[in-house]
Amino acid sequence: MQNNKINLKEKFSLFSKYWAPHIIAEMNDHQFKLVKIKGEFIWHEHKNSDETFIVVEGDMEIKFNDKIVKLSQGEMFIVKKGVPHKTVSENECRIMIIEAKGVVNTGESGGSLTTPNDVWI
Amino acid sequence: MQNNKINLKEKFSLFSKYWAPHIIAEMNDHQFKLVKIKGEFIWHEHKNSDETFIVVEGDMEIKFNDKIVKLSQGEMFIVKKGVPHKTVSENECRIMIIEAKGVVNTGESGGSLTTPNDVWI
Repeated sequence: MQNNKINLKEKFSLFSKYWAPHIIAEMNDHQFKLVKIKGEFIWHEHKNSDETFIVVEGDMEIKFNDKIVKLSQGEMFIVKKGVPHKTVSENECRIMIIEAKGVVNTGESGGSLTTPNDVWI
Repeated sequence: MQNNKINLKEKFSLFSKYWAPHIIAEMNDHQFKLVKIKGEFIWHEHKNSDETFIVVEGDMEIKFNDKIVKLSQGEMFIVKKGVPHKTVSENECRIMIIEAKGVVNTGESGGSLTTPNDVWI
């Protein structure tokens, strides 16, 4: 799988479920994941890894205790490890997340939006 | 610097030199770098890190001993550590590279295209 180039649009066409990260590549001990988001996620944090968000298509917000970061296509933001955050998007937004291997999408918070962390496309 | 969102187009407007990686963000022990490329780079390898290429604008090729990978906007490829490669682009191409902190652009090969590996924009 990793011997071929990766086309982000093609990969996004392979799934439709919101908030479910799909791994597309691995670099050293980190992974690239595509996610389609719409609505509100839950407050959570990741104790052991920073989390990079890159917006591929659409608009999203990352809420923090003290601010809101608004991101559009071609913009990125890195949430440092241990920082509580919550992602929000009114309409469908397509994002790429980069983080250490093994990170669970809801961190330590759990709940119904928690998905397996090893789904490759 | 890392408390603000990063707009890739804005960051690309801040430099013009080809083959010179400019760091825009750090995630755990990895860095995101923007590079404008045009022409031919040199054969080299990175002993201690995989190297992720994401094409933000334009077209490029990554040459390997046994194949050539052609990448366009919205496509990515990960060169595994220790694999000799050479990047080529006929026209200007704007790319983002993600790799472990401390990687030098020419690996162990040296030469006139070697640039400092700690230039932030």
